[in-house]
Amino acid sequence: MIIDRLYDEVRRKGPVCVGLDTSLEYIPEWFRNHFNDIDEVLFQFNKWIIDATLDAVACYKIQIAYYEALGLKGLSAYKKTLDYVRSLGAIAIADIKRGDIAKTAEMYARAHFEGDFESDFITLNPYMGMDTLKPFLSYVRNMEKGIFVLVRTSNEGAKDIQYIKDEKGVRVYARVAEKIHDLSEDYLGQCGYSSIGGVLGCTHIEEAAKLRQDLSHMFMLIPGYGAQGGGAADVAAYLKDGNGGIVNSSRAILLAYKKHEGGEAHFDLYARREALRMKEEILNAAGLPEK
Amino acid sequence: MIIDRLYDEVRRKGPVCVGLDTSLEYIPEWFRNHFNDIDEVLFQFNKWIIDATLDAVACYKIQIAYYEALGLKGLSAYKKTLDYVRSLGAIAIADIKRGDIAKTAEMYARAHFEGDFESDFITLNPYMGMDTLKPFLSYVRNMEKGIFVLVRTSNEGAKDIQYIKDEKGVRVYARVAEKIHDLSEDYLGQCGYSSIGGVLGCTHIEEAAKLRQDLSHMFMLIPGYGAQGGGAADVAAYLKDGNGGIVNSSRAILLAYKKHEGGEAHFDLYARREALRMKEEILNAAGLPEK
Repeated sequence: MIIDRLYDEVRRKGPVCVGLDTSLEYIPEWFRNHFNDIDEVLFQFNKWIIDATLDAVACYKIQIAYYEALGLKGLSAYKKTLDYVRSLGAIAIADIKRGDIAKTAEMYARAHFEGDFESDFITLNPYMGMDTLKPFLSYVRNMEKGIFVLVRTSNEGAKDIQYIKDEKGVRVYARVAEKIHDLSEDYLGQCGYSSIGGVLGCTHIEEAAKLRQDLSHMFMLIPGYGAQGGGAADVAAYLKDGNGGIVNSSRAILLAYKKHEGGEAHFDLYARREALRMKEEILNAAGLPEK
Repeated sequence: MIIDRLYDEVRRKGPVCVGLDTSLEYIPEWFRNHFNDIDEVLFQFNKWIIDATLDAVACYKIQIAYYEALGLKGLSAYKKTLDYVRSLGAIAIADIKRGDIAKTAEMYARAHFEGDFESDFITLNPYMGMDTLKPFLSYVRNMEKGIFVLVRTSNEGAKDIQYIKDEKGVRVYARVAEKIHDLSEDYLGQCGYSSIGGVLGCTHIEEAAKLRQDLSHMFMLIPGYGAQGGGAADVAAYLKDGNGGIVNSSRAILLAYKKHEGGEAHFDLYARREALRMKEEILNAAGLPEK
């Protein structure tokens, strides 16, 4: 099960996930000028970030929207980035948030677990129902793939649907979490977590401890750290002995160089430093020694 | 407002939308053998279907998952198909069901309303909340673009989230419908419908009349006709004088040739015949004369 690989990466390197939400305007001008093609600029920037952080982080999350926005050239950079991460033996999470039914869902599974855009984990949106997950399960079972299903997000609008209370006062996101957790029991790794995990925004510490307890074998993908406002204490409450989840940061890492005069020249090293700082902060908040 | 164009297409040609969910195995072998590249095979098949149906249908819905499944080549065919539909002055609906927050949503807007993958309408998934729609609204207001937000789908799993009842007994999909309807009031065309519409599966006739009344200015994208089980009577209940919605059919049209011995040779003409048959069936059920 792929979750055992991810668990082991977190155990060895800590719970930081680098979000490669790479926008052209994030890339220093001197670096952009080195390349003629958009896809090379994007890919090479990502490569430098990956090379500088590989020993310090658990995995990479690539947000496909940033590449889709640049059309075919952008998606070529997306493919190159996935291929590069995986060629190093590192874990690539494709943040695609797809969700559709029947044959269309099969096509999304094929798109992101095989061929040009093959990744290790993908994110999925459950709004259309649990049957939308089915086409992905044989990949989880037989092909070392994993999924993270959206449970509760960290944006303001999360309240619009996810926070609706049902007739018994249970919120929609909790209903979703329970269904995902039930399903995930059939896909447990030796580490005790499942290859079917959940996406949980990190901005609500008061519920985090309860969720961590209720969803005992759910591995959590936790966005919202840094730029989106979540802090180390919130995040630490989702972890169990510093594992059981990964904490994503994108802009705070990719743009760390902007906080330093002349930082452009060493954007990769500032990214590394920020990833290490973030790891230390989270492990401290969790009461664990730095790795 | 783009909705006026769509309304007028439906008025002149009827409410059928051809779903270009084109899988390689749908394409007759003799046709496949004419082309060397996957993207040319897919695009040329679509082109033949489009050429044969252009005067008979309101618009085309292209399901991106089928193209994504074939990687960069597939997405090249996707781009060519969108470009071709729009070059003819016809309306292209990109069935992408994206849904994400803040800057990521901005990237999806840029991806599908500009550049390589520019389309006229897109579908969106609301699970993450109403703020996820914001980045698309300036395109709707200023750039002749439209969106269809998932409200209630026609699959079995729709009950898992969409049918949850809130504390007052109102279902989640009805809450979503109300929010979308409120938002859509600011984007009305002269036809009385809004460029912000909803996706409503056509398999529940008993609620259709009430939804049509409650959501008086919501233009509806109605999937689930034919292969997914919905019938003309269900669909007709969503329409008002045969307008106010489009009814999508994909496989029943693309694969109509399979019902006829030797049909492969004229797959395009059988697609046309099926589109016309479906239109007649729907207009009859709605008590309207055939166009």
